[in-house]
Amino acid sequence: MTASATHKLILLRHGQSDWNEKNLFTGWVDVPLTEQGRKEAQRGGELLAEAGLLPDVLYTSRLKRAIVTANIALEAADRSWIDVKRSWRLNERHYGALQGKDKKQIRDEFGEEQFMLWRRSYDTPPPALDDASEWSQVNDPRYADLGDAVPRTECLKDVLERFLPYWESDISEDVKAGRTVLVAAHGNSLRALVKHLDGISDEDIAALNIPTGIPLVYELDEDLKPVKAGGTYLDAAAAAAAIEAVANQGRK
Amino acid sequence: MTASATHKLILLRHGQSDWNEKNLFTGWVDVPLTEQGRKEAQRGGELLAEAGLLPDVLYTSRLKRAIVTANIALEAADRSWIDVKRSWRLNERHYGALQGKDKKQIRDEFGEEQFMLWRRSYDTPPPALDDASEWSQVNDPRYADLGDAVPRTECLKDVLERFLPYWESDISEDVKAGRTVLVAAHGNSLRALVKHLDGISDEDIAALNIPTGIPLVYELDEDLKPVKAGGTYLDAAAAAAAIEAVANQGRK
Repeated sequence: MTASATHKLILLRHGQSDWNEKNLFTGWVDVPLTEQGRKEAQRGGELLAEAGLLPDVLYTSRLKRAIVTANIALEAADRSWIDVKRSWRLNERHYGALQGKDKKQIRDEFGEEQFMLWRRSYDTPPPALDDASEWSQVNDPRYADLGDAVPRTECLKDVLERFLPYWESDISEDVKAGRTVLVAAHGNSLRALVKHLDGISDEDIAALNIPTGIPLVYELDEDLKPVKAGGTYLDAAAAAAAIEAVANQGRK
Repeated sequence: MTASATHKLILLRHGQSDWNEKNLFTGWVDVPLTEQGRKEAQRGGELLAEAGLLPDVLYTSRLKRAIVTANIALEAADRSWIDVKRSWRLNERHYGALQGKDKKQIRDEFGEEQFMLWRRSYDTPPPALDDASEWSQVNDPRYADLGDAVPRTECLKDVLERFLPYWESDISEDVKAGRTVLVAAHGNSLRALVKHLDGISDEDIAALNIPTGIPLVYELDEDLKPVKAGGTYLDAAAAAAAIEAVANQGRK
């Protein structure tokens, strides 16, 4: 890292949730962290404190697994007092009709190719979720401002397209103002951010996994380009092991 | 309570902190909650959920005992996703040179009359805290925007005067917009708010204590006047017992 006038952006994927543990597609379903997830969040905050990385402002999705991860991490880093901004634009990808379904079952039923297409293709969304489903968010008061634009399914391209306006209008403005920004969010909303920052192609983003609970720090130049492509994980060994584990999801 | 178009405002004093337990004057010193304090916060959130009171927006001070109380309560009430706004204007009264001092010791040293004057008089602040004190906040980055206006001591009148502009500019605007507002704060910033809402005199406010961890709900008419003076505690019996205990602080 250089000593020049660069900006700091910290990405934190939420710790293990109930449905990560149960190997279910989650998306916009608002499931809680497991005890392990809470421990990951605690460790994430300790890593921030050990690195002397002090966030000035927190961004989260509207989902409790990201929010509670951030709350726990900031308490561990003694930065609970910073400003907080939340947006559905940081939510996980909406997994459509897959929400609530077992990953292994879907893989067995539809085959590896279709499974990987839904999980990792840039522009193929799963089938839409029925509004009458118990896993639908169409009547969730937290998305009232979205009206009928609440997603029924999304591919990563959709996530990027709804995330980028918020990056431009809010997050990047805080970064440019010199604030150390912490973004606590999800596998796919963070992949969208990393794709944008690092200029990763639609094809190559398929192979990128972000582990849970380990802060990923980007140093950005004045044009908000990464000084080091891919950023730096605060616990590189743990990140490498976790990335491997994420890649194997749906195979157990 | 009536079914007319009234507004809902919920006040929540933080649960027991380390220094409540040790019987020290705390003020702007950023001490954590005790385990009991965390349980009080949990119970506060459960009371909100049981009453069907769903906050739309959270206001907190910049002090972790209020912030963490709110985090725990909102998680218990399953409302972690709401917007959050923080301000030093909701901080506890700055206790000046008393910060970090034992309440009983101060009472023994200065006598009951002086002790109660510092604790409860409306317009007599304690002696100013030296900027070199370990309990001073003059160099705390969270108050950087205050510059040299960081308080060195405050009486309740000072609290009211720095709280009211924020009530007018932000909190009351959210209330008038129909949002159910949760204010998670401190004994004296909440007393300032209650004094304002209920039109309590400078003399009578001395006798008002607000217990920790029990939501106090105000229903406000269109002019933001309380429908019922004093509001309603969600657990009236526990509130009455706790008010009695607060009144006896410094006597143990």
